Amino acid sequence: MSRILLLGAGRSASSLITYLLQHASTEGWQLTVADVNPAHLVPVLAAHSDYARAVPFDIQREELLDELVPAADIVISMLPALFHLPVARACVRHGRHLVTASYVSEDIRALDADARAAGILILMECGLDPGLDHMSAMQALGHIRARGGRLTSFKSYCGGLMAPDSEGDNPWRYKFTWNPRNVVLAGQSTAKYLEHGHPRFIPYQQLFTRLDTLDVPGYGQFEGYANRDSLSYRAPYGLDDIPTILRGTLRRPGYCAAWQALVRLGLTDDSVHLGNGPDMTWAQLIESYLPGAAPGASLPHRLATHLSLEAAGPEMQKLTWLGLFTATPVGLPDATPAQLLERLLTTKWALQNGDQDMIVMQHLFNFEVDGQPLQRTSSLVVLGDDATHTAMAKTVGLPLAMAVRRLAQGQITHRGVVIPIHADLYEPILAELAADYAIRFEEHEVSRPPAAQDQR
Amino acid sequence: MSRILLLGAGRSASSLITYLLQHASTEGWQLTVADVNPAHLVPVLAAHSDYARAVPFDIQREELLDELVPAADIVISMLPALFHLPVARACVRHGRHLVTASYVSEDIRALDADARAAGILILMECGLDPGLDHMSAMQALGHIRARGGRLTSFKSYCGGLMAPDSEGDNPWRYKFTWNPRNVVLAGQSTAKYLEHGHPRFIPYQQLFTRLDTLDVPGYGQFEGYANRDSLSYRAPYGLDDIPTILRGTLRRPGYCAAWQALVRLGLTDDSVHLGNGPDMTWAQLIESYLPGAAPGASLPHRLATHLSLEAAGPEMQKLTWLGLFTATPVGLPDATPAQLLERLLTTKWALQNGDQDMIVMQHLFNFEVDGQPLQRTSSLVVLGDDATHTAMAKTVGLPLAMAVRRLAQGQITHRGVVIPIHADLYEPILAELAADYAIRFEEHEVSRPPAAQDQR
Repeated sequence: MSRILLLGAGRSASSLITYLLQHASTEGWQLTVADVNPAHLVPVLAAHSDYARAVPFDIQREELLDELVPAADIVISMLPALFHLPVARACVRHGRHLVTASYVSEDIRALDADARAAGILILMECGLDPGLDHMSAMQALGHIRARGGRLTSFKSYCGGLMAPDSEGDNPWRYKFTWNPRNVVLAGQSTAKYLEHGHPRFIPYQQLFTRLDTLDVPGYGQFEGYANRDSLSYRAPYGLDDIPTILRGTLRRPGYCAAWQALVRLGLTDDSVHLGNGPDMTWAQLIESYLPGAAPGASLPHRLATHLSLEAAGPEMQKLTWLGLFTATPVGLPDATPAQLLERLLTTKWALQNGDQDMIVMQHLFNFEVDGQPLQRTSSLVVLGDDATHTAMAKTVGLPLAMAVRRLAQGQITHRGVVIPIHADLYEPILAELAADYAIRFEEHEVSRPPAAQDQR
Repeated sequence: MSRILLLGAGRSASSLITYLLQHASTEGWQLTVADVNPAHLVPVLAAHSDYARAVPFDIQREELLDELVPAADIVISMLPALFHLPVARACVRHGRHLVTASYVSEDIRALDADARAAGILILMECGLDPGLDHMSAMQALGHIRARGGRLTSFKSYCGGLMAPDSEGDNPWRYKFTWNPRNVVLAGQSTAKYLEHGHPRFIPYQQLFTRLDTLDVPGYGQFEGYANRDSLSYRAPYGLDDIPTILRGTLRRPGYCAAWQALVRLGLTDDSVHLGNGPDMTWAQLIESYLPGAAPGASLPHRLATHLSLEAAGPEMQKLTWLGLFTATPVGLPDATPAQLLERLLTTKWALQNGDQDMIVMQHLFNFEVDGQPLQRTSSLVVLGDDATHTAMAKTVGLPLAMAVRRLAQGQITHRGVVIPIHADLYEPILAELAADYAIRFEEHEVSRPPAAQDQR
């Protein structure tokens, strides 16, 4: 029997919980779901009361970890990433395994030796991105290497978007399926990648203008902007000498140009409180950003002039659709521009009943086999089942849940702080995702004319 | 007898120390100068050994404060601003007055009640900017109010620059006379001011393009960009209902357009470490910021194209003069862009022997007396005496020193956390600065046609 403790049961944990409940009986698990609001779990767990229970849990009361963690064999943390450290420390203290879908922070990495000494696995980055990206990239890289391929370029993109039928009349073709604050603050640093052996830097103020265009068969075009640090993937992927490496985030075409207008206007700044009242309207806020007054010209027209946008162009269309020029109150007193924008977008980009989300991931590998240049494209599209089992919840939760199942079965022998870049970890998970959930990458390979360089 | 303790004796403390030594004997002071490197003070204090001594002091060893502070009656802190809090706490603990030239932080403000209870004055913002700006503005406002004037606009600018003869061949017409890091990171937030009753916001990416032009008689033109928060000056200045208020920083014309090029390029970002080696050259660094490759075109030409600058224009001239396109190594491994830029500028913008710096401050008041619109301009230009008694050292140190003298004489009865906006504080200081140091504002008043609005 394995005792499994899940910390945090927010929206993105739905598919994870369903998987755990499906397998609990046959695998002989006792499942404890600890959440700040356990009431919503009662109907979910009702038919599983023999082996599943919900308990109240507030991470602010860290001492609760010393009750819950030792009573489990495996801990899953779906808490916000900043809370993983106290959980990981409790797991080390009590000798219990930990699995999360979050990036390895420096603090977590520092626990590696202690985790090994305690004989436990701290498996991080085992969701979608990070998670499935590592697994699928490493699998494809393994295949290429097995053929004697020499990698010259690796680009990898991921985006949490809407299924085409659920984009509605939203000209951004985007709704929130993940942390809105992270979307608003995305990219507020210099992005770093490598191109033909040269480091490339893109500052925030240029980020949304330096785009790649991607085509995903059956789903049309996407645009990708560079993620913060693509260079850090070289070592774990065994690509220390690769000349070109880039990781990026996908949006539908046109999103980035309109987002760049919000960046230039100043609405993504989170470093200053504006001193506004909650009754300030969006039109007044936008007015405050425009230089001087221009009697007679309309607010949208003056904004377009200020940002050198076409008055009736696609960017202005998207800004207008957000309601930037209306008398709607901004609603938050003395807020940062980013807080006001997040509040507005949370309304405008809310998932509606019946909306279906979509995860898109694509890897592009350039490589040579026996002097022959080839390009391999691995593409994944996952659609949400419904408002509960979204594509985001499935792709984040299922890899995590499958890793936990194999860990409970004693099939994972790694110890210390680990990410799923090892074949014995990712092969069974990718196989199960493909077989049972039709979550599989489409592989496509073409000869590549040697002259075709990757120009950004 | 008063015992005076000066914490921190860096370059900007020179005029302060000279003033204290000049008056120590007649005023009956015992002066202790505590500095991390007291050796350089030995020649300075040599002729004053009866009443002045230097002691080693490292603020990292906070326990030293509990020896030094109780042995003094008045403490002057010229330490970097972040160290004022432990000093202020020690002053409260031991019931000793504190005087600094730094802004009141929230932490310092919170000590107000404790300082009053301890019967001490914590006089902050008593240097140049903040300091002389408060004093001179409040004096001019007092004169205007005494005539029944109704204020409609207050703009105030200050800059630490070079005397015209010392600009040399530097096309920026700027050298460092103050903390280089603060200059590189200046304005990295949204600036807030008020114009005709409307709030105005300028994000960082627009800040150096939204300029006012100022004329200072005898010294030519300057350009001013808005400071971070002009609104916070309304309450202390008694200008709660003023329709227009703006505070700005002065540079010579053309500086801001070229600085904006550095901002757009990304060189002022301090949030990311680039992973570079120390041998990376400036040309390689600049290359890394350019999109794609363009065989044949020169690096400066491609940069000009990237930033939409004229290839032979004044901005490119300034960037070229900095050496951005040379094989000079950046010199710091794994640095932020801002750190690399600061390192470069510290070389290029270094004061040379014989250089004379210049402080420029200008207040512009629009007001009405009996329905008659008037504009009053208060302008101050201070030139450095030499490389030691710079204009910066004089204007930061002398107001502080004069406040200390009057405090030692028992003429200042304010207690708690105070800034010099009270006539009994600033009138004697402004009078002494004018009489003994020829540091005086030129006042100029003209009728203002009612139609002349302040357009930014």
